[in-house]
Amino acid sequence: MSLGKNFIVTFFGESHGECVGAIIYGCPAGLKFDEEFINQELKRRSPIDYMISTSRVEEDNVKVFSGVLNGYTTGAPICMAVYNRNVDSSVYEELRFKPRPGHADYPAYIKYAGFNDFRGGGIFSGRITAAYVLAGAVAKMVLKTLNIEVIAHTVEIAGIKAKPQGIEEIRRNIHSNIVRCADLDTAHLMIERIRKAMENGDSVGGVIECIALNIPIGLGDPPIDTLEGDIAKALFAIPAVKGVEFGLGFDFARIYGSECNDQFTVLNGKIVMKTNNCGGILGGISCGTPIVCRAVIKPTPSLRKPQKTVDLISMEETIIEVKGRHDVCIVPRAIPVVESMVSIVLVDHIIRLGLIKTVLK
Amino acid sequence: MSLGKNFIVTFFGESHGECVGAIIYGCPAGLKFDEEFINQELKRRSPIDYMISTSRVEEDNVKVFSGVLNGYTTGAPICMAVYNRNVDSSVYEELRFKPRPGHADYPAYIKYAGFNDFRGGGIFSGRITAAYVLAGAVAKMVLKTLNIEVIAHTVEIAGIKAKPQGIEEIRRNIHSNIVRCADLDTAHLMIERIRKAMENGDSVGGVIECIALNIPIGLGDPPIDTLEGDIAKALFAIPAVKGVEFGLGFDFARIYGSECNDQFTVLNGKIVMKTNNCGGILGGISCGTPIVCRAVIKPTPSLRKPQKTVDLISMEETIIEVKGRHDVCIVPRAIPVVESMVSIVLVDHIIRLGLIKTVLK
Amino acid sequence: MSLGKNFIVTFFGESHGECVGAIIYGCPAGLKFDEEFINQELKRRSPIDYMISTSRVEEDNVKVFSGVLNGYTTGAPICMAVYNRNVDSSVYEELRFKPRPGHADYPAYIKYAGFNDFRGGGIFSGRITAAYVLAGAVAKMVLKTLNIEVIAHTVEIAGIKAKPQGIEEIRRNIHSNIVRCADLDTAHLMIERIRKAMENGDSVGGVIECIALNIPIGLGDPPIDTLEGDIAKALFAIPAVKGVEFGLGFDFARIYGSECNDQFTVLNGKIVMKTNNCGGILGGISCGTPIVCRAVIKPTPSLRKPQKTVDLISMEETIIEVKGRHDVCIVPRAIPVVESMVSIVLVDHIIRLGLIKTVLK
Amino acid sequence: MSLGKNFIVTFFGESHGECVGAIIYGCPAGLKFDEEFINQELKRRSPIDYMISTSRVEEDNVKVFSGVLNGYTTGAPICMAVYNRNVDSSVYEELRFKPRPGHADYPAYIKYAGFNDFRGGGIFSGRITAAYVLAGAVAKMVLKTLNIEVIAHTVEIAGIKAKPQGIEEIRRNIHSNIVRCADLDTAHLMIERIRKAMENGDSVGGVIECIALNIPIGLGDPPIDTLEGDIAKALFAIPAVKGVEFGLGFDFARIYGSECNDQFTVLNGKIVMKTNNCGGILGGISCGTPIVCRAVIKPTPSLRKPQKTVDLISMEETIIEVKGRHDVCIVPRAIPVVESMVSIVLVDHIIRLGLIKTVLK
Repeated sequence: MSLGKNFIVTFFGESHGECVGAIIYGCPAGLKFDEEFINQELKRRSPIDYMISTSRVEEDNVKVFSGVLNGYTTGAPICMAVYNRNVDSSVYEELRFKPRPGHADYPAYIKYAGFNDFRGGGIFSGRITAAYVLAGAVAKMVLKTLNIEVIAHTVEIAGIKAKPQGIEEIRRNIHSNIVRCADLDTAHLMIERIRKAMENGDSVGGVIECIALNIPIGLGDPPIDTLEGDIAKALFAIPAVKGVEFGLGFDFARIYGSECNDQFTVLNGKIVMKTNNCGGILGGISCGTPIVCRAVIKPTPSLRKPQKTVDLISMEETIIEVKGRHDVCIVPRAIPVVESMVSIVLVDHIIRLGLIKTVLK
Repeated sequence: MSLGKNFIVTFFGESHGECVGAIIYGCPAGLKFDEEFINQELKRRSPIDYMISTSRVEEDNVKVFSGVLNGYTTGAPICMAVYNRNVDSSVYEELRFKPRPGHADYPAYIKYAGFNDFRGGGIFSGRITAAYVLAGAVAKMVLKTLNIEVIAHTVEIAGIKAKPQGIEEIRRNIHSNIVRCADLDTAHLMIERIRKAMENGDSVGGVIECIALNIPIGLGDPPIDTLEGDIAKALFAIPAVKGVEFGLGFDFARIYGSECNDQFTVLNGKIVMKTNNCGGILGGISCGTPIVCRAVIKPTPSLRKPQKTVDLISMEETIIEVKGRHDVCIVPRAIPVVESMVSIVLVDHIIRLGLIKTVLK
Repeated sequence: MSLGKNFIVTFFGESHGECVGAIIYGCPAGLKFDEEFINQELKRRSPIDYMISTSRVEEDNVKVFSGVLNGYTTGAPICMAVYNRNVDSSVYEELRFKPRPGHADYPAYIKYAGFNDFRGGGIFSGRITAAYVLAGAVAKMVLKTLNIEVIAHTVEIAGIKAKPQGIEEIRRNIHSNIVRCADLDTAHLMIERIRKAMENGDSVGGVIECIALNIPIGLGDPPIDTLEGDIAKALFAIPAVKGVEFGLGFDFARIYGSECNDQFTVLNGKIVMKTNNCGGILGGISCGTPIVCRAVIKPTPSLRKPQKTVDLISMEETIIEVKGRHDVCIVPRAIPVVESMVSIVLVDHIIRLGLIKTVLK
Repeated sequence: MSLGKNFIVTFFGESHGECVGAIIYGCPAGLKFDEEFINQELKRRSPIDYMISTSRVEEDNVKVFSGVLNGYTTGAPICMAVYNRNVDSSVYEELRFKPRPGHADYPAYIKYAGFNDFRGGGIFSGRITAAYVLAGAVAKMVLKTLNIEVIAHTVEIAGIKAKPQGIEEIRRNIHSNIVRCADLDTAHLMIERIRKAMENGDSVGGVIECIALNIPIGLGDPPIDTLEGDIAKALFAIPAVKGVEFGLGFDFARIYGSECNDQFTVLNGKIVMKTNNCGGILGGISCGTPIVCRAVIKPTPSLRKPQKTVDLISMEETIIEVKGRHDVCIVPRAIPVVESMVSIVLVDHIIRLGLIKTVLK
């Protein structure tokens, strides 16, 4: 029920409960603990622009409960939380027995026999991703000590695809537009499409690409704990993710082996791959090139537009129009969440490989 | 390092070692244990046709070491293996220090400092999937007691996509052609494309779709152990899988929320969804509709065609032409493997949900 | 790093940090959640009497962060904490580099290279057991729905052994004296001995027996997850526990097989055992008789008496006299902690056996 | 269901099945793999002397299925087994519905609804400990690379206690007598008592002490994965173990804190403890002194002497006289098993601490 084997992260909390949070077991002692960085990461996850995000605005700040002393991790479990402040559950009372199409409402109601926390989607809400960012930010702190960078960006929204960009363009451009797309020309089109969806009371999805640079060779424990499998499982824990691919991904089905095999050569006395079609992972373990993965985010299920549902009590068809605060497109906000999940998995496998011990020095 | 939490499967074995095998912990006692069925499943995984499969032919039969008595499971760990008989490692001596592009050879060599079993790819070989099928066959026996069916079929090979088919067509047609495609017209084109690749000493990949029918509501344990995440992790354990998606998958990025949300209605007094765009899973838990997932299989990396690599000893560039027995397209053989992994995950979550206890009755 | 497989408990917090707490994954939904009961259990763990307990007095009350709605568990992770209020860390600054004999100070300093939270013993403090009681109280709520009772009592302190008592005497008498001993005559002697230790600035240990009644047959998953092994591991997580035994325990080494084997007979049409020398567990699984285990608690290591230690900075021998608040004998306070750990393990195995499902009804 | 987190051992097999075996995940690559040593360890576990051991004699030899190439571990899972050769199940047919007092027969029958492998006790038989020795022997190979020694000896049999001996005496003397007791005078008395029990068709138990030398500081992950807890859980997986204690163990209940606290001093510029009452573990983590633990072994339950039981079919009382091959006292044979379990746990925690990486060099 947790992420990781040696860097183990457990999550808790509901959308309209007291808080959402994370516990990390296995974080090395002696890590400089930068609360300010965590808060910045939380800010990256908060609603970006009123035009695409009608969601509630929370001034999210981390509260650390354990595992840190005098600015350094102690080696003990780190418990952190973000309080829920801007909560109004009244709208959900009405929805309680009207499951929203595309949402977890219905199966959760059946699975937990109605005892589940229905307010704001409970644990199924995107709010849980604030807890993911807490743990992800700590993972990033660990990765920084190894000079590893994890960066995500938007590559598709509502059918509009960005043109591929170099890592420098990605680093530079994603902060310059509200959809966090490195292809600036396309970013405008994406924003336009989102606005249109908003006007229609509709929503759109997209694709996020995540790149991890400076990865040591050997991360991953096949046959089962492949690096791909562990990253994928972590990404599917993000509500709305419905697909994950690495390197060429589904395009591997449209190409010959001789075209996609990454051939080896020697550069400056070192073995390198000429291409990175494999997305940095061969046989389930990292091979030294950047890890490249993509996750598809489905359109937010909560819509102002009327949708058909069934009243769970009367068992009659009815219409639902969701009035709460919801994002038209969560793709840009999911960027730091994707980075967080990838970072958590990387730290776990780095510790497994013995590259980091019980104490960072 | 194992699959599952309550139905726990651990794998072992190498391509050119003694055998490959699986241990299952948590299989309920009292399950009628059908060895013949396991052998049939192994046969489905064996090379199908000499035209698309130049791979070694092994008469695979299960050997049961523990956990079964008088034709029924005892509740104790079930250990099973398939012996490797048709093994010729000589060709691999030559390849030992010439990593094959697209294969695990290079990162495995670095990770294990050259101690890894290089013969036939060792544990990174597709041979390990025979062990997956052993466990998957047992999982299917359990699923049968609940009337759950798991069926996979080929939907794309080398860029050629099959037209969508109904479940009846799938059940009927996949046995009628060597690519196991339910769209009979397209199957011919796929086979043609594979033949062409074979002539060129090349290889091709494809996409497999897996459908699970009659699924109870409530499988999956969010936030982390989502049904999607657990299935994806299991599928990524299959060598060559580079992407996994559910329902509309990556097409969710190209559609409006109002179009893809599966609306609810009442049919014969029961709540049903009119569509199944979500692929049977909402919020990480099964919602009652069939589970639909797809995995992309990359082209086999081992090619007759010459490819560039580097000699790990001399650190000089060299050319590699792989002469061993390899499939031009492993997609059809991967069908029972995909079914196996999905079945294992389903049984695990079914036990978690309490639908099956320690003893089947 | 957690307790349990299906009822999974993770702990966090330090003695002088913000709080100590627990997260429970896998608690069934629909459990009536009684916060008052949790607070009563915390009170049972708080210092009992100034004469034997000079420890800090905290008005411990549970704070629930997640997993409960309208008085019932929701099926989501339950996060709970107890805040640390009465904290004075000044005394520990002096001790920071003077490891207390018998305490974790020295190995923790080495393991974490001095980054560990030294204040009040950090995570190695007995304070963590307040978190154990939080989770244990929830486990007891679950056990009550099955009519299972877990009760612990003091059977030895400072070499003074209580005479065996029946379950009725135990239930009645343990509340009537501050050492929670069911043998009232002996209780006085124990108290006397503790007082003497206190006067000398010394400390004493003892033995706690825990009995679990109305246990279903079949709990435990041999060969590894035996019920004894899982209970023992949980009990060793209590600071100061140095030994655990079941049934006759170490006396099994002093008896013939024909004397200790619990023979079977028929009573009212049911199979019963005439004796319970095995302590309710045979072959690692519960056999229907009450579970009986004992844990030895070593004397509190922190003493007013001067002890020899070494200054970790100067590497010179020095004398330590611990002035903080410490118990002379923690045995009575450990009673609810022992019950908690046993209860947590029982619930985990009850869920494994399928006796409780995802929802309590 | 497995032992360990980073050195993970899974067991399988039954007493009268095909074989018993073990799979190790996480064994470092590059370990010189000494099959001969494994066979020697198996030999140490085999019946020692016809006078105290009437058990079946099996020429046990390890069969390695995976994970080893050219005499070195490869980093892949190591699967090993010992075949069962000398099997005669006929006697057990008679016992099938007559549960032996003190044995797992009855609760196993209930738990698995009669599907359990009853032949020879199935997975509950002491035969499973041959598999423990397989994994333990590999663990010892790893420990040798760190110069860590694990040695067990008999300290009590049938109420006769050995006088404490130094490590040199233990090393020297345990091979000189069939009870493996370092106190040679007492060994004779123990043997006498065993003979007497044999003549009476009875059985006796005893206590084994295990010592681990040259232990690094810092093994153990409190609060839950204490070194004591993990060792205890591993020892309770040995059939017949009913108690485990560390250092002074249950005698901690009979002593003052000032007497048992191990005080620190400086010796040759290093911090040392003057005594080792704690048994090498403080606060759940190793503190540098030898680890000292003891396990009590109950008398073998299978007796020639008539015992009362109940026929599970007729539900009537009956008499059972066990005629199969059984040990009168398994304590001496359990010595290498205890060493194995302690060794496995030590290697796991050594890898966790980062003292050994993915490859041994």
